[in-house]
Amino acid sequence: MRPVPRYVQQADGATLTFSVCTLVQSDEKYDRLLASFARLGFTAENSEFLAADNRTGNRFDGYSWTKALLAEARGRYVIFCHDDVELIEDGHDALLARLAELDAIDPTWLLAGVAGGRWRVGRNNWKRLATHISDPTGEDRRLGTLPCRVESLDECFILMRRSRPVVSSYDLAGFHFYGPDICLQAEFLGGTAWAIDFHLRHYGKGQKWQSFHACKRQFIAKYARYQPNRHLHCTTGIVHLSPPDEDVDR
Amino acid sequence: MRPVPRYVQQADGATLTFSVCTLVQSDEKYDRLLASFARLGFTAENSEFLAADNRTGNRFDGYSWTKALLAEARGRYVIFCHDDVELIEDGHDALLARLAELDAIDPTWLLAGVAGGRWRVGRNNWKRLATHISDPTGEDRRLGTLPCRVESLDECFILMRRSRPVVSSYDLAGFHFYGPDICLQAEFLGGTAWAIDFHLRHYGKGQKWQSFHACKRQFIAKYARYQPNRHLHCTTGIVHLSPPDEDVDR
Repeated sequence: MRPVPRYVQQADGATLTFSVCTLVQSDEKYDRLLASFARLGFTAENSEFLAADNRTGNRFDGYSWTKALLAEARGRYVIFCHDDVELIEDGHDALLARLAELDAIDPTWLLAGVAGGRWRVGRNNWKRLATHISDPTGEDRRLGTLPCRVESLDECFILMRRSRPVVSSYDLAGFHFYGPDICLQAEFLGGTAWAIDFHLRHYGKGQKWQSFHACKRQFIAKYARYQPNRHLHCTTGIVHLSPPDEDVDR
Repeated sequence: MRPVPRYVQQADGATLTFSVCTLVQSDEKYDRLLASFARLGFTAENSEFLAADNRTGNRFDGYSWTKALLAEARGRYVIFCHDDVELIEDGHDALLARLAELDAIDPTWLLAGVAGGRWRVGRNNWKRLATHISDPTGEDRRLGTLPCRVESLDECFILMRRSRPVVSSYDLAGFHFYGPDICLQAEFLGGTAWAIDFHLRHYGKGQKWQSFHACKRQFIAKYARYQPNRHLHCTTGIVHLSPPDEDVDR
């Protein structure tokens, strides 16, 4: 018997607008996130909420959780955010408006986030970040002019279109540098990453544990092969993609 | 009202084993493909069949159709094949057996195909291809020892796991070089591509129209930035990733 195929005529057949995907470690934080999204227009009619379940141990790491949830997501836009994010004033409509702006400015955009390192601004430029965010560093902080093309994004909030996905590295692991990693993969794919003006609160303190430096070393070792000596501006600091013979932690 | 999230606990929650995705230009060829898959064990119980519909014009090109269908696919494995492919002896069970073999040999595999250029064999190695295929060049042809790690795959049949996707470039277009392109993207992601022993018939003649050379030029211009002077072995010939100043068609 001949199987019955399904013909696809368009690149994006999504019915939901957003898939809000979260790496969840804490029920309490996640409840705060969900309540804030609901308050600001993300409803069951336009959005689904998917959680990578790390509540009882690290089933997923920074590089694997986005893949696992992307495979399940059904929305037109897929948001990947930490559980310690809370929407405070911008919501569903503001986000769609910012993305429409981005479509007009740069149709090749693949990733959008709320904080990142400006794209190739030069090694010693101190105005290296672009964001509008409230976090432990300060309320309602603004750096740079948004929207702003970036070369890295903070992992607290990253969004992509499901029909234009970007995938994280398979040869990196851990909970750091997967924002910069996915931005460099977007570059390899021929697209761009942007910081947009979507003001939210991030409760995370971004502490640099020992694991941070191990992740940084493996990140440098990987990308120095392709882009030796590039200085990559990240929200956690500048990373020098030093070739192997000068591959020391700095 | 607090939205109801769905918790995801595993990387791959697929219920179907295969999504057979095809770029369809001809109903007649596609019917032959579907009948052959059905004959060899791909049933509605284990597989779905998705068609990128190019029957009345080129809605999709080589780089866009895989993205459009990946977003719809629900199988554990996603096959991307041309409509002029026909299964002749190996089927559902053989393919699963080959993939289990591959899992054991190289868990970092991201792509599997039926014909490709051996991985970094050196510029002048004439044994540069690996395949088991029947095509206009000959019946039951065998080149190299399979499975074989490759640096490029022929576009006629390429498979990935849905939970470990690889995406084609967004800055390339056309109907050529999207096999080599997706293999280089797999390398960037830190994974590998393999030719496996899955004998099928490919009716395509692989003619090199003018569009082939235009695609080759854009492919070289893109990848020479990241891997200057690499000689990439493709089923269509050797491609020299010449830096911009020597970027001539050869």
